[in-house]
Amino acid sequence: MNEAIKVGVIGLGTVGQGVLRLLKDNADEITRRVGRPLRVTYASVRDPNKPRDCDLSGVTTVADPMQIARDADVDLIVEAIGGISPARELIETAVGRGISVVTANKALIAEDGNRIFDAARQTGASVAFEAAVAGGIPVIKAVREGLAGNRVERLAGIINGTCNYILTQMQEKGTSFDEALRDAQRLGYAEADPTFDIEGMDSAHKLTILASIAFGVPLDYASVSVEGITKVTPQDIQIAQVFGYRIKLLGIAKRHATGVELCVHPTLVSEKAMIAKVDGVLNSVVVHGNAVGEVGFYGRGAGGDATASAVVADLCDLARTLGVDARHAVPPLAFQPEAVQPLPVMAMADVPSAFYLRLLVADEPGVLSKLTTILAAHDISVEAILQREPHGEDDATVALITSVIPQHRFDHALTEMRALPFVREDAARLRVEKFE
Amino acid sequence: MNEAIKVGVIGLGTVGQGVLRLLKDNADEITRRVGRPLRVTYASVRDPNKPRDCDLSGVTTVADPMQIARDADVDLIVEAIGGISPARELIETAVGRGISVVTANKALIAEDGNRIFDAARQTGASVAFEAAVAGGIPVIKAVREGLAGNRVERLAGIINGTCNYILTQMQEKGTSFDEALRDAQRLGYAEADPTFDIEGMDSAHKLTILASIAFGVPLDYASVSVEGITKVTPQDIQIAQVFGYRIKLLGIAKRHATGVELCVHPTLVSEKAMIAKVDGVLNSVVVHGNAVGEVGFYGRGAGGDATASAVVADLCDLARTLGVDARHAVPPLAFQPEAVQPLPVMAMADVPSAFYLRLLVADEPGVLSKLTTILAAHDISVEAILQREPHGEDDATVALITSVIPQHRFDHALTEMRALPFVREDAARLRVEKFE
Repeated sequence: MNEAIKVGVIGLGTVGQGVLRLLKDNADEITRRVGRPLRVTYASVRDPNKPRDCDLSGVTTVADPMQIARDADVDLIVEAIGGISPARELIETAVGRGISVVTANKALIAEDGNRIFDAARQTGASVAFEAAVAGGIPVIKAVREGLAGNRVERLAGIINGTCNYILTQMQEKGTSFDEALRDAQRLGYAEADPTFDIEGMDSAHKLTILASIAFGVPLDYASVSVEGITKVTPQDIQIAQVFGYRIKLLGIAKRHATGVELCVHPTLVSEKAMIAKVDGVLNSVVVHGNAVGEVGFYGRGAGGDATASAVVADLCDLARTLGVDARHAVPPLAFQPEAVQPLPVMAMADVPSAFYLRLLVADEPGVLSKLTTILAAHDISVEAILQREPHGEDDATVALITSVIPQHRFDHALTEMRALPFVREDAARLRVEKFE
Repeated sequence: MNEAIKVGVIGLGTVGQGVLRLLKDNADEITRRVGRPLRVTYASVRDPNKPRDCDLSGVTTVADPMQIARDADVDLIVEAIGGISPARELIETAVGRGISVVTANKALIAEDGNRIFDAARQTGASVAFEAAVAGGIPVIKAVREGLAGNRVERLAGIINGTCNYILTQMQEKGTSFDEALRDAQRLGYAEADPTFDIEGMDSAHKLTILASIAFGVPLDYASVSVEGITKVTPQDIQIAQVFGYRIKLLGIAKRHATGVELCVHPTLVSEKAMIAKVDGVLNSVVVHGNAVGEVGFYGRGAGGDATASAVVADLCDLARTLGVDARHAVPPLAFQPEAVQPLPVMAMADVPSAFYLRLLVADEPGVLSKLTTILAAHDISVEAILQREPHGEDDATVALITSVIPQHRFDHALTEMRALPFVREDAARLRVEKFE
């Protein structure tokens, strides 16, 4: 039962390298979750001399990917070369001999998924593709399983980080589309030939997949109406803002009385909507189910590590079905029962945090100096401070935010501050938490 | 294989009724996904004469819930009575005879989950609890499975809608805590005795569960440091805003070098963070994984339908493991292959939408009147309009947003407008999409 699950990785580009890194770096966590280690035993590389950002020790590298698909002694295969051919032939060969495949290949799934799934069904193999849509956001799983009780009425998403970065730049800096695109290319967010992203085809591939799992319709890329972002002007972004809107490239799948709407186009969304606030290279998908209402997801939609996160999640799902009783495929607490282990829970006094402090003080000279001297003596920096003049009373309000420090250090300083004759009883101390 | 899966529902309160409604209303979608219908055959009700908002035809109702747990001919059981006892005894009895249970009972899982999971393991039954945290948001599944490749570094969430509603009211209207609480009670967002919510215990239960699945630690409710929102003042909310922050009640689970931090407390978060924008009764959970970075989820955290959405998702998961080959538990396109059916894809011309239009027009009298006359003739209302004076040129910009209309109607109007002598070539037409 604790034998390693052998994984073959076809293609060692950004995604393939990310998968190897992740399986190595998080080996302990993954084994605790799955119950068996996942080990890459084979990898195919086009150029064996190219330097790679992953450890290939213990991995047999081959030049011909078909060798892995057809012959290699592996339990699961990751297809990470992208494109339609030979990726399709490789996957069909692998599932043909009963080996399940994980892929991040949205073009292939959107265009040829129906036949690939049929091929897999013949042998009982699976083809998993969480990484094909919205990178690391587990949106396929959420819609397919987490919202399985719902009739999905609408699904809409920012599913191309390149376009979202360009539109965000145009919004924030007032730059033209061309300038923003060059900027994205310089930062590596857009390819040298950006057509596929900026003309909306990449979003359309992802929308095709999302629509299928939302509505239970066959994959049908050709039926999606597509409009890219090349004609969006700074002027329109600016006028939309005056109306209280942002312009985002959305993929939309929606039920109507007479059929479904499937489209990708630049769209005005109210600045108050959560999806309007998803900026830069982030992706976001919003699903409206008839029971759950609106549920939203956001996160990194691209990049080797975020994509590898989704690939490895699929590997874990498939690994759990190899030789284990289906009922126990996913343990209740995510980790195998024998791997659930306590960790020391820190006393709050030891937990580092930035702190917000509000004090009521007598309005007299030297107050700020005495307070800040105490903070300095405890090696606490002040990140922001505000003093308000008293209105009608003799007391003034001082509020500040500190650097990140263990709570006990802050509390010692607070005790000293409270002992100062000019500090009143009323005070508030709250923690500050940072997010990306 | 197409025989119905028999479900027993213990408790017909808000959640239980929601489950019955959902299984009936979405029966087609659910059967297409799972491959077998899910049918409620037994339900326990304390007061059989109380009117209920669900159809009980075909359901055998019993007064004693233990009768369902111990004897009823069911494949799966939903525990929807809440509280520790007798919910615990009921679940232990059901899993004791090998019947898997779905529950929304966060208090029970947080406080007694370890022994309940142990009891289930003895017979191979499962206990599923997606609905216990963040209502309809599939966050348990996302962390447990969707992020399985990550080492979770931090998890933070707005996991009590009552508190978030109160803090949002205080923020937006400047009301006191007491006023906002009374307002929440009047609207049914807070209970007559709101202690459990406002003192943070409910959030602590949910955080306990999230921390376990994130870190693989045993459930340990007693180790969570808890501080409620009763001491938050409008003044602190206002000063925090000056500093660029919002105050939210967060549950936080975070790894540090010496252990884990587990706490619930009012927290300052930057107004730029997505989580700061989650207002009203919405819930949100943000997870930081070492591969994926920050991933966020938001949606309705409470209410019969949202909670039922999560309960039914768990039922679908468990139903898929009853007598099916594990490899095919979840079909690739969410729906069973034989149930994947095309739906007519609407021509974009027929798709209804609100439209944004920008026109460049000669700066002469009567322009607006002629444009709006054409719109009116096509029965198109104008929701917002803006005319900009020309600067240095002879042309002016007119921009407007229409009501929701089929595209062909808008395009006919646009064709007529473009034919007007004063309308220039340059024009933009974009769609507007509404979110909650």
